[in-house]
Amino acid sequence: MSGDESLIDELLAGEHRALARVITKIENRSPGYRELVSRLHDHTGRAQVVGITGSPGAGKSTLVDKMAATYRERGETVGVIAIDPSSPYTGGAVLGDRIRMASNVGDMDVFFRSMSARGSLGGLSTSTTDAVKALDAFGKDRIIVETVGAGQNEVDIVRMADTVAVLVPPGSGDDVQMLKAGILEIADAFVVNKADLDGADRTVKELREMVHMRDASPMAGHHGAGAGPSGIDDDKNEDDDEERQPPIIETVAKTGEGVDELLAVLADHAEWLEATGERGARARRRYADEIRTLLRADSAALVEEELEARGGLEEYVDAVVARETDPYSVADEVLAPVAEAVRERRDARED
Amino acid sequence: MSGDESLIDELLAGEHRALARVITKIENRSPGYRELVSRLHDHTGRAQVVGITGSPGAGKSTLVDKMAATYRERGETVGVIAIDPSSPYTGGAVLGDRIRMASNVGDMDVFFRSMSARGSLGGLSTSTTDAVKALDAFGKDRIIVETVGAGQNEVDIVRMADTVAVLVPPGSGDDVQMLKAGILEIADAFVVNKADLDGADRTVKELREMVHMRDASPMAGHHGAGAGPSGIDDDKNEDDDEERQPPIIETVAKTGEGVDELLAVLADHAEWLEATGERGARARRRYADEIRTLLRADSAALVEEELEARGGLEEYVDAVVARETDPYSVADEVLAPVAEAVRERRDARED
Repeated sequence: MSGDESLIDELLAGEHRALARVITKIENRSPGYRELVSRLHDHTGRAQVVGITGSPGAGKSTLVDKMAATYRERGETVGVIAIDPSSPYTGGAVLGDRIRMASNVGDMDVFFRSMSARGSLGGLSTSTTDAVKALDAFGKDRIIVETVGAGQNEVDIVRMADTVAVLVPPGSGDDVQMLKAGILEIADAFVVNKADLDGADRTVKELREMVHMRDASPMAGHHGAGAGPSGIDDDKNEDDDEERQPPIIETVAKTGEGVDELLAVLADHAEWLEATGERGARARRRYADEIRTLLRADSAALVEEELEARGGLEEYVDAVVARETDPYSVADEVLAPVAEAVRERRDARED
Repeated sequence: MSGDESLIDELLAGEHRALARVITKIENRSPGYRELVSRLHDHTGRAQVVGITGSPGAGKSTLVDKMAATYRERGETVGVIAIDPSSPYTGGAVLGDRIRMASNVGDMDVFFRSMSARGSLGGLSTSTTDAVKALDAFGKDRIIVETVGAGQNEVDIVRMADTVAVLVPPGSGDDVQMLKAGILEIADAFVVNKADLDGADRTVKELREMVHMRDASPMAGHHGAGAGPSGIDDDKNEDDDEERQPPIIETVAKTGEGVDELLAVLADHAEWLEATGERGARARRRYADEIRTLLRADSAALVEEELEARGGLEEYVDAVVARETDPYSVADEVLAPVAEAVRERRDARED
């Protein structure tokens, strides 16, 4: 039995040290990590994966802590993956995570792990997806993936979560406006955290208007929230009951207020996913994404290898600068033999 | 002579209709566009390419119009590529561009073209880069690429521009804060447009502080502008004269105020690029990027073709859902024969 096989066995037997080592191998892309993740896959599919995203300062860390503690009180096991943004400009948040992790050492029913968001092509999503599989195979009931809602991460989180909750800080009319450009599509629930602060009611009202507007006219982006239909809003409307409207929950993470309600909403969503077959549909989309991302990364690596074998990129750049060739001709030169070989193989296979 | 060859000849002979048709072929990825761009490459490298980016409402369109008109008055020819953001939420801006284009019909010394920012892997940068080559080969003296500064575009613009100017609307302390996360690195100049509005002076002051802070400590992202060293700022400091500090120019695009100064700054930058060898270094980086992007896109297409030949992605997803296989094993199965073929070819080539 190889070391990695016994590592898997230990993980499946519930040893947290093995889980930690597997995630480290996954994060570092250590030799053998692919086989590890391959073997884990067979044991996945049971956990509920919740994505929590939102701007820095929205109170994600505190809320996730309270969610985890509440799940634990109910006897459920929890894994948390917190994504460290790669930007050096948010060093404070990273430090915060580290401190938070330390405070949970010793209580292994909540397994915390900070992971870097570094990595190029599919870097974040691939290693995070793999780590979620490790937690799922381990047998964690609930897995929470926490990301700073900065650009692409917000969209990537959907790849690995069954349910996505978007945190919105109160009193941030501008933030609600900015949310429009893609967050609305991925939010299964909105959480107005720090709901005890001034402006929380207005933020809830603006979120409601935004959710209604989407239903009324999916492409109605010209209307700002201010220019949209104002008047009285109630939480239910009938113009589109096919599509599920994301509920808006108010919480005060510091005191734990609203956390029970949030967990109830997440449980409702999990039921809805099962009842409508959406859980399976999302899993399929995720697997398709995973396969495509891996194929892209692997073929990019293969191309890189071929480029190196041909003397490296710099030589080609020299020739392009000298106008002896051009980028398209270079791409054709490097890839044409590959394409030819692939097609020959395929023909041989089909004969 | 094929139709495309005569099209190139007409473009090189200065026919604007041929230029327009070439860019349409480039934008639509029409059959033969790769060969067209390959042939153009030999005639490029003469134009100065300026990128103008900034948030919606910063006044980019008006400023670019005034820049183009001023260049023209000096007897220079100008090409403008305005990138339509793909988001449906900025429909207004797109309409604005179209109207602006129409108002310039008949004056072909300024060639305006709106291009869509749609497109997946390298989509924006590749077709825009190719269109810039068409304008360059045509013989335009100045090429302006105008993009909405929304996320990735801001960074992509560097790939095709010699000089990047970032527009900042006045009175937007928050915007200056938000600029930090990547814009600072790509800006060769900052333009505070609408400098007649309240708050312009403060914005200029904040930009100066930001530029100085970067020089003092490149990773000093923890300090907000407010928390940073305040006190009196003067435009010059001596702590780092190796690196060029991006100048800050105030303009009122509507009246044309400051446009001459902006063009002088851009000309200075072009001289600096030549004198320091940075122009050549940037061109090399651009060509390396172009080659990599093309190789990635082409190999992704090849993988897609192989996936189809094997029955399509859906069949693999079925097997992953049924836990008969997993994403890594699928990637290995699809790519292993490709990798093998590539290595066999390489060995044969090296014998």
